[in-house]
Amino acid sequence: MIILGIDPAIRTTGYGVIDAGPGGKFSVIDCGVIANSQKLPHSQCVRRLHLGICELVNTFHPDCAVLEEPFVGKNAGTAIILGMARGAILAALSINEIPAFAYAPTVAKRAAVGRGSATKEQIAVMISAELGIETDQIPLDSTDALALAMCHASRVLRSGAVPGREL
Amino acid sequence: MIILGIDPAIRTTGYGVIDAGPGGKFSVIDCGVIANSQKLPHSQCVRRLHLGICELVNTFHPDCAVLEEPFVGKNAGTAIILGMARGAILAALSINEIPAFAYAPTVAKRAAVGRGSATKEQIAVMISAELGIETDQIPLDSTDALALAMCHASRVLRSGAVPGREL
Repeated sequence: MIILGIDPAIRTTGYGVIDAGPGGKFSVIDCGVIANSQKLPHSQCVRRLHLGICELVNTFHPDCAVLEEPFVGKNAGTAIILGMARGAILAALSINEIPAFAYAPTVAKRAAVGRGSATKEQIAVMISAELGIETDQIPLDSTDALALAMCHASRVLRSGAVPGREL
Repeated sequence: MIILGIDPAIRTTGYGVIDAGPGGKFSVIDCGVIANSQKLPHSQCVRRLHLGICELVNTFHPDCAVLEEPFVGKNAGTAIILGMARGAILAALSINEIPAFAYAPTVAKRAAVGRGSATKEQIAVMISAELGIETDQIPLDSTDALALAMCHASRVLRSGAVPGREL
């Protein structure tokens, strides 16, 4: 099963594509970041996020995608901008008929590395062995996306476990 | 100049396409609503919004689009969902290279009908004559979108006036 993990944000969207085998063995196919410079207007940011996800889908043909459940803070202005990134990404997935699930960041980290409060650096170290990749080949902004993909894989492969909320 | 006005929301996105002639004469080409049932998951809502806007662009070839500047309330959860609608719509415009501008609802209504606090029903009555369309042919949820398009048209055609914020 190919799973595309996505950690959405308007300027830096992390992604990780993993292959979860039936024996519970996971490996990284690709991981990286869709980066938008601070100078880019929002219209160009959402364009790049949308086309970037379409490109990943067309390249890796994931069976499903996993997004971070948004952290709902108190700032509605920030929330609208985060929502724009999610909307552009979710439209790309939905148009390509990729089902999308969501997990809270703490749930994903706990499932992937055992600790909901792990830092990006800790996640990179902890998942590198399991995913068969050197730590320095994991961009820090893609660690949460990889943790999301691993979390979903372990939920789906573990019989009886409940997968995350379908978007 | 063909202008596509859009009033984005996850369940009911109003739109209006107007033709603004050089003599300051406006006419409606189309107006309506992209409606998503309450039962539809968000992934399907953003898909329908994105594809709906692409369809309008391919049909009417607008020179530009005009969106409502989002009302930033206190509820960050609601703001994320509104942002998702905007992101899916803005990605559709940007991929099709349609420049997008934004005006606050009160600014748009004041420019179109003289009063920033006008209701949908009042806008429908007030713009019907100017746009050459019967009131009952204007869906109420498209009135704000038509007002946005008229506002932008009058700003652009009136020399020296400043157009809205480009997205």
